[in-house]
Amino acid sequence: MLGLMQDWPLLIPKIIDHAGLYHGGRKVISRSIEGPIVETTYSDIRRNALRVAKRLEKDGIKLGDRIGTVAWNTWRHLEVWYGITGIGAIYHTLNPRLFPEQIAWIANHAEDRMMLVDLTFVPLMEKLADKLPTVERFVVLTDGAHMPQTSLKNAVAYEDWLNEVDDDFAWKSFDENTAAGMCYTSGTTGNPKGVVYSHRSNVIHSLMCNAPDMLGLSSRDVMLPVVPMFHANGWSLAFTAPMAGTSLVMPGAKMDGASIAELLVTYKVTHSAAVPTVWLMLLQELEKTGQMLPDLTKVIIGGSACPRAVTEKFRDVYGAEVMHAWGMTEMSPIGTLCSLKPEYADLTGDAWLDIKETTGHPPFGVEMKIVDDARQELARDGKAFGRLMVRGPAVAGSYFKREGGEILDADGFFDTGDVASIDPYGYMRIVDRSKDVIKSGGEWISSIDLENLAVGHPDVAEAAVIGVVHPKWDERPLLIVVPKAGRTPTRDGLLAFMEGKIAKWWMPDDVVVVDEIPHTATGKIQKTTLREQFKAYRFPA
Amino acid sequence: MLGLMQDWPLLIPKIIDHAGLYHGGRKVISRSIEGPIVETTYSDIRRNALRVAKRLEKDGIKLGDRIGTVAWNTWRHLEVWYGITGIGAIYHTLNPRLFPEQIAWIANHAEDRMMLVDLTFVPLMEKLADKLPTVERFVVLTDGAHMPQTSLKNAVAYEDWLNEVDDDFAWKSFDENTAAGMCYTSGTTGNPKGVVYSHRSNVIHSLMCNAPDMLGLSSRDVMLPVVPMFHANGWSLAFTAPMAGTSLVMPGAKMDGASIAELLVTYKVTHSAAVPTVWLMLLQELEKTGQMLPDLTKVIIGGSACPRAVTEKFRDVYGAEVMHAWGMTEMSPIGTLCSLKPEYADLTGDAWLDIKETTGHPPFGVEMKIVDDARQELARDGKAFGRLMVRGPAVAGSYFKREGGEILDADGFFDTGDVASIDPYGYMRIVDRSKDVIKSGGEWISSIDLENLAVGHPDVAEAAVIGVVHPKWDERPLLIVVPKAGRTPTRDGLLAFMEGKIAKWWMPDDVVVVDEIPHTATGKIQKTTLREQFKAYRFPA
Ligand SMILES: Nc1ncnc2c1ncn2[C@@H]1O[C@H](COP(=O)(O)O)[C@@H](O)[C@H]1O
Repeated sequence: MLGLMQDWPLLIPKIIDHAGLYHGGRKVISRSIEGPIVETTYSDIRRNALRVAKRLEKDGIKLGDRIGTVAWNTWRHLEVWYGITGIGAIYHTLNPRLFPEQIAWIANHAEDRMMLVDLTFVPLMEKLADKLPTVERFVVLTDGAHMPQTSLKNAVAYEDWLNEVDDDFAWKSFDENTAAGMCYTSGTTGNPKGVVYSHRSNVIHSLMCNAPDMLGLSSRDVMLPVVPMFHANGWSLAFTAPMAGTSLVMPGAKMDGASIAELLVTYKVTHSAAVPTVWLMLLQELEKTGQMLPDLTKVIIGGSACPRAVTEKFRDVYGAEVMHAWGMTEMSPIGTLCSLKPEYADLTGDAWLDIKETTGHPPFGVEMKIVDDARQELARDGKAFGRLMVRGPAVAGSYFKREGGEILDADGFFDTGDVASIDPYGYMRIVDRSKDVIKSGGEWISSIDLENLAVGHPDVAEAAVIGVVHPKWDERPLLIVVPKAGRTPTRDGLLAFMEGKIAKWWMPDDVVVVDEIPHTATGKIQKTTLREQFKAYRFPA
Repeated sequence: MLGLMQDWPLLIPKIIDHAGLYHGGRKVISRSIEGPIVETTYSDIRRNALRVAKRLEKDGIKLGDRIGTVAWNTWRHLEVWYGITGIGAIYHTLNPRLFPEQIAWIANHAEDRMMLVDLTFVPLMEKLADKLPTVERFVVLTDGAHMPQTSLKNAVAYEDWLNEVDDDFAWKSFDENTAAGMCYTSGTTGNPKGVVYSHRSNVIHSLMCNAPDMLGLSSRDVMLPVVPMFHANGWSLAFTAPMAGTSLVMPGAKMDGASIAELLVTYKVTHSAAVPTVWLMLLQELEKTGQMLPDLTKVIIGGSACPRAVTEKFRDVYGAEVMHAWGMTEMSPIGTLCSLKPEYADLTGDAWLDIKETTGHPPFGVEMKIVDDARQELARDGKAFGRLMVRGPAVAGSYFKREGGEILDADGFFDTGDVASIDPYGYMRIVDRSKDVIKSGGEWISSIDLENLAVGHPDVAEAAVIGVVHPKWDERPLLIVVPKAGRTPTRDGLLAFMEGKIAKWWMPDDVVVVDEIPHTATGKIQKTTLREQFKAYRFPA
């Protein structure tokens, strides 16, 4: 027997309809690529999204077509996401920080029919254009006055293109499982793989991730997403904020400390979200200028582990609470967020920081467990660690064109590639990536724990730990450090510093000092390259 | 092209799984029907729900079977909802305040196979038993020690029944559109009609209604649902609270002022939900005892219009914010909730009360518009009023057995039967029920506005306004009042009090003083009965 409630598909355009109707005057403030600050509203965004949809149809774009975007966070990028999904086409964000060949490879694999690009990326696209046979037209996200001379195929300025139509348009209707968005994983091994979000997954993800214990955005909040929309589905903020009627402040191309600080203060931002590097830059800037952040209450930090000092400084100096979050492109992307349940609500000082260092707990809609190599579930005791497996309506079931084949286990769980522990209240702690964990004599050593410890040394700017083959133990840890300017850390000094703070058998077998550690386009340590660099390295006998 | 995210049906048991795993120790505290306070946890509720599911299967209950519940809010009622839905059977709440014949009619119409009843209702059920041919077994929600002698068919004490099985059970899996719950509308005209909730509608409704601008429940909150689970899907709190990990305090059979006050204070309740009458009783009690409510922050009031004085008193004396809510059985049931958007966030004093008197704005997932008799949409200007139409994933599409036929208009909107205005920010104000509105010379007069005005008179305890036939104007308003104890309001005194506060042509043509005004089982003024009583009444010439 079926229920008798209405058939109301969970479609993305309904989000901007709701925002336009019930939070129509709420502002979306952007630093434009052209320079000036541009103010618009959800009601404007909705009207322009309707025009984008109508205009795309005029260009022959149909349900299922992929539209590439190479763009920063601005109101225009927001408009086009809603316009594209409004006719059942697919926003496909490309990460401009990737190598140009990778960008071309991804656009070809996705078979993007159009490419919407910010002014910043016109030169990059011109270099790539002849490698993008599927792209029929380039739209430059600017107005006629700022449109550059360009060789890009059928190039047109966004505002001119849009001005050819009015907003008299009705969203198309289709199954809620229709594809809505695409984002390729950074792909540390093999080719990048496309994650294909549906309307349903994006809507449910926003609903579940905006619970009061998760993002908790309200119509009285102002959110500054520093995290770019091309990074892991933009952390879903392009959906969550309008759904909640939360005002948005979009940083455009400028994400340096001074530019972000200016936006935070001027527009009374209450919530912001970014990877740790951004916050490190911001804190440095604030220390220099002595500026305070009187309106900021929540700082969402994810993408890689959040340094304890950052959480501490936000609390003690700026009165803002860091919400450490964990997720991945395959998860739409939020998996867990560190808000404090009653069991931890009264913690203070270091005990509070200890919990804030975990990546927190999942919302309803993310199932999570840790398993050993035999796929047996491990205890949720905060000590046992194993492969982190996830399941839910916003978790990938397969990749585009089934690259990578079957990616779920027999119970439908996806292997995150992370190694983690879960405590009795559900707080998850990332121990390592499963391919980075060091397998020493059948036991696992967390490379991340060693790195975190090493960067605590006053002479160390950055640290990485990799496993190196060992005749007796299979693998043993090698510590690689970049010195702080003007400092000269030594092997013995470092080892002495670490001694006693970890189990004896976790101690690195050797230390190497280097000038630089390689990073991925999203700012993570590139361990594959590092392992490549140290392929020939052997421990001293 | 479809998205490639996981197929994860939105099923109700996943809510209690989440609560049991991530908020396992969070308390559910009930005043038991037997008397003492009983403390249990979400982890216990989950385990017992698994046993209920297993035990129901043993009794031959299958997917689609209806299980009646005639019960107050207790942990046992909560357990059985989850257990029932865990095998795809349907919880069917019966309102024990209805006339016995109505209860029998509804149970027969629903073809309930089992009946789970509180001790309180055993005598009632015994009287009805021979009129309930479809019911195969009665389970009394108590333990062996408290089990009464009873003639009820196959009667068994719940705890004994449950003790026959362990919790080694896996929830059944099925389509998310499977029916999960049933609740009959009060049915002021014709027979009651069954609303059939699905797993999907209940899960989505809880997700959307727990947004920070709506119920906004977190794991640090404690919710006391005074509203019974048999009233309009229990306002969905049996799902929303566990989903958010919010502690529950269940009032059992005692909803008088003193009993509620005791629970609010002892268990540090932060949120509570009930119809206005409950709050009036509570406030009277508090005034008598001088007790304060230090932990209470949010008071959710719905079901009928919330008197301004209640909102004011909670604010000024008890420091709690009233959240006026509107909804109906057909809406799962929340339609709107009055939280303050930035446009109204700075209001104080009377201006604040004016907005708090509206029923607020809808969450994402409730579409709402007002139309005139020709079904043309009316302006959202806070002045125009018309029939309120709604659409969404948790709004009824039809009634059980298609009673009432097609209930949606061509665009899929459901006519709420309410007459309302909507202001530019989406705040909705109930003007009247469409069948109660007084049609005077082609114009509408709000009976509710007149009633609200009349109860402001110091001599009036309760007021009702109905339309009475009029030779010239079709209908004119008749004001019917119940005096406060020891007071004697007069026709002229009342009319003089109202004069100047409303348009002249809205003034009642006459006033009648009565001892009592009839009410429905859910506490609303029964206008049909009132109209019946005054059928012969004619205005003085
Ligand atoms: N806050 C409210 N103010 C006025 N009327 C309300 C309110 N909430 C619910 N109602 C009325 O109750 C009806 C639903 O009744 P029920 O289905 O029994 O919950 C609505 O259609 C309204 O007429």
